[in-house]
Amino acid sequence: MQVPVGLSNRHLHLSKEHIDILFGEGYELTKMKDLSQPGQYAANEKVDIVGPKGTLTGVRVLGPARGETQIEISLTDGFVLGVTPPVRDSGDLDGSPGAVIRGPKGEVTIDKGIIAAARHIHMHTSDADRMGLVDKQVVCVRVEGRRGLIFDNVLVRVHETYALEMHVDIDEGNAAGLKNGDVAEIL
Amino acid sequence: MQVPVGLSNRHLHLSKEHIDILFGEGYELTKMKDLSQPGQYAANEKVDIVGPKGTLTGVRVLGPARGETQIEISLTDGFVLGVTPPVRDSGDLDGSPGAVIRGPKGEVTIDKGIIAAARHIHMHTSDADRMGLVDKQVVCVRVEGRRGLIFDNVLVRVHETYALEMHVDIDEGNAAGLKNGDVAEIL
Repeated sequence: MQVPVGLSNRHLHLSKEHIDILFGEGYELTKMKDLSQPGQYAANEKVDIVGPKGTLTGVRVLGPARGETQIEISLTDGFVLGVTPPVRDSGDLDGSPGAVIRGPKGEVTIDKGIIAAARHIHMHTSDADRMGLVDKQVVCVRVEGRRGLIFDNVLVRVHETYALEMHVDIDEGNAAGLKNGDVAEIL
Repeated sequence: MQVPVGLSNRHLHLSKEHIDILFGEGYELTKMKDLSQPGQYAANEKVDIVGPKGTLTGVRVLGPARGETQIEISLTDGFVLGVTPPVRDSGDLDGSPGAVIRGPKGEVTIDKGIIAAARHIHMHTSDADRMGLVDKQVVCVRVEGRRGLIFDNVLVRVHETYALEMHVDIDEGNAAGLKNGDVAEIL
């Protein structure tokens, strides 16, 4: 039960309303490159995230627009901003810290939305069937090597639009000595 | 078999010769605070580490002086400098990248010495006896919680001057959701 690993660097998803404020009324994000999950892409657009203690400059926007703006950073990034992002599944933003987002045409203050994304595995329905796993199951994942470890509490997300990939953040990737495309084992 | 955890932020150890160059001939490091390992201390002195791509400013010196200068950073710090520190045990510096070290009185160029310290556990001889472990044994260590995981390849170092503590770097601490003083379990 092998799974390729993708390391998620800091990024954010923006609502249509916030794109209008940050980049101008009616602005459409432009695609830099497709991501592994179908329909998702890294946009050319970047913004600055301003926290109480510091600023993360040039943080990449992922597209397409979402219902709610969400900023995904590592705990290391949180030290720079001066906030402690809770470890959360995507979309679970209640009680998370906010920030000021600065774009080329304007800025937005959000009162919540900064999280450290909980590690998770995307997989297609056919992968889940083959592995005997179901959506929202929690698994352990082993990484080999000098910094080998076993990640506990890895959430499995199954959907017919998903491609098989485990997502960890940069702290987790570094802690396990992982590079993009390395392979880990679901236990 | 519980062990308290200490998170090691970026720091360096300096040779007497390099202290002379960076801080002035005959300079003695001054103690800011004792560390958990007897005789080791965080000094008041800080230096800048300059790599091919960027600079880490205000990196803390640990005392006392050592035979050889050694810079311990995270892989995240390595991105800032533009070097890839190998994951190594303390003192194992062959083939590691170098850098320029800038102090208030001078600068030194080292051609090796930057490592990401391999995770390890210090323990007193009496702890090792109690746990049935020996020096240089490699163990697994479990961390509980939302970011729970099991660290593989954790080196045990036993000495009658050591105090029981597991050392991980900031990437590893963040990946496991650890704070200083949290307790992990040796398996």
